[in-house]
Amino acid sequence: MLDYAAFSREYKAVIEKEVVEYVRKLQAPSIVKEAMIYSLEAGGKRIRPMLTFAVLASFGRDIERAIPVAAAIEMIHTYSLIHDDLPSMDDDDLRRGKPTNHKVFGEAVAILAGDALLTYSFQLIAEMTHSEVTPEMKLELISEVSKSAGAEGMVGGQIADMEGENKQLTLEQLEYIHEHKTGKLLAASILSGAILAGASAEQRQHLRQFAFHLGLAFQIRDDILDIEGTEEVLGKPVGSDMTNHKSTYPALLTLQGAKEKLAEQVQLAQDALAETKLPTMILLSELTDLIANRNH
Amino acid sequence: MLDYAAFSREYKAVIEKEVVEYVRKLQAPSIVKEAMIYSLEAGGKRIRPMLTFAVLASFGRDIERAIPVAAAIEMIHTYSLIHDDLPSMDDDDLRRGKPTNHKVFGEAVAILAGDALLTYSFQLIAEMTHSEVTPEMKLELISEVSKSAGAEGMVGGQIADMEGENKQLTLEQLEYIHEHKTGKLLAASILSGAILAGASAEQRQHLRQFAFHLGLAFQIRDDILDIEGTEEVLGKPVGSDMTNHKSTYPALLTLQGAKEKLAEQVQLAQDALAETKLPTMILLSELTDLIANRNH
Repeated sequence: MLDYAAFSREYKAVIEKEVVEYVRKLQAPSIVKEAMIYSLEAGGKRIRPMLTFAVLASFGRDIERAIPVAAAIEMIHTYSLIHDDLPSMDDDDLRRGKPTNHKVFGEAVAILAGDALLTYSFQLIAEMTHSEVTPEMKLELISEVSKSAGAEGMVGGQIADMEGENKQLTLEQLEYIHEHKTGKLLAASILSGAILAGASAEQRQHLRQFAFHLGLAFQIRDDILDIEGTEEVLGKPVGSDMTNHKSTYPALLTLQGAKEKLAEQVQLAQDALAETKLPTMILLSELTDLIANRNH
Repeated sequence: MLDYAAFSREYKAVIEKEVVEYVRKLQAPSIVKEAMIYSLEAGGKRIRPMLTFAVLASFGRDIERAIPVAAAIEMIHTYSLIHDDLPSMDDDDLRRGKPTNHKVFGEAVAILAGDALLTYSFQLIAEMTHSEVTPEMKLELISEVSKSAGAEGMVGGQIADMEGENKQLTLEQLEYIHEHKTGKLLAASILSGAILAGASAEQRQHLRQFAFHLGLAFQIRDDILDIEGTEEVLGKPVGSDMTNHKSTYPALLTLQGAKEKLAEQVQLAQDALAETKLPTMILLSELTDLIANRNH
């Protein structure tokens, strides 16, 4: 269990099965279920559920209790991709090498499938049944996840990202965008694990710090991959940030500067993790290095 | 307090103030807050919050405890209008006589403002602080509201409505659409009041029946107004259902038949209400008659 590769192999399969099962059992028109499942099955690294699970494992707790909230966060991540890809937003035809949701199901169904995923995510948390999950924990999870996903989190980041298009952003503005657009929901994944593990207030504070630096590292790596990656592995065109006149870390700091900042953020994440004094930190530590060095 | 006109005058003002206050205090880019508030302030009858409040009053309980959930449901109703009006959906330029959200803020912001309203609604319920509201009640509210709003409720109804466009529907299909597209969230408003009032399982069952018939009555009246109403009072063109080839009760049953069905549903709603044996039913009873006879 202390090897991330084996850990993720096992639990990635679990979450990919469960998240689809949750949708299948809905009594709803089949087209909206198909559209929801299409994007849930589009693959991806499932980093958010893996973070939740890895936190629970680090506290020595069973992972089963977290499946509904991990699925909920993956649904929120998926809805955000569906809506971001829409013609009025990023207008993307491909996502991970497959046609985007609205290309297959049309814009109206894509919007509604996103709405349904977002709505369902809170139902899944409210209806968690594991004996170790108290009503208070469920409410904390809903509060944490909704705040991270809404106007003060992911949606706010997406708005700021759109407003920043074709503008020269400062490093501070770029950081606001990333902290909100991707960082907050990554942090919610980590904090969800902490809530379910019964982490102390101090441990949670360190895990928030860990999440903050991990989120930045994740995004800097993303920007670097847009320059150094290959289309085949990424599943999307390389250099699209530059074509779309997006502000990026390499653009603001040079490629070398971005790499230095990435290394710095990884170190700060590892330091914050060490402060939690968890019994086993190896999974989260390995996951951090993987995120920093990933090639897609 | 037993006169609905006075009751709604007082509490309509309360909910209209609170729902905007909740958005104002968000730490988020101002454009998304403006877009959220624009549609929340667009007026309307606030039937959903009034139903929640009227149920609490009927049980002799204070109304303050329900403000966050009433605001949450009004936010969900508002998000659904924003998304329904989009060009890829109903493509409406006007809503209650004002330009629709995307006409003012653009499609991308409109989609995101809707997403933010939906997300925030669950946070508001999870963070209710009234001393009479237990964690179990909050979870029941989230479960009820999310189920009513998602693929098994409102979103499913909207999908079925779109699929039924330009088709001759059966009465059964038309009823599925309305029960889901508008009925479920109306029912959630009523059930939310029941949950917060500590209603018995039997009372809840009768209130569900009441909500079902009230929802149908609401929709039949809507269809009749599209024929008999005036554009000035409705805030939208009369006869648009026929222009858009929408199946309606008058189209399926004749105008006279639709009026008979409306009267029947109102009677069934009143009967179910009587079964609850609530101390004071006058508010809900008046509200039912108002919904059945409204001119906008």
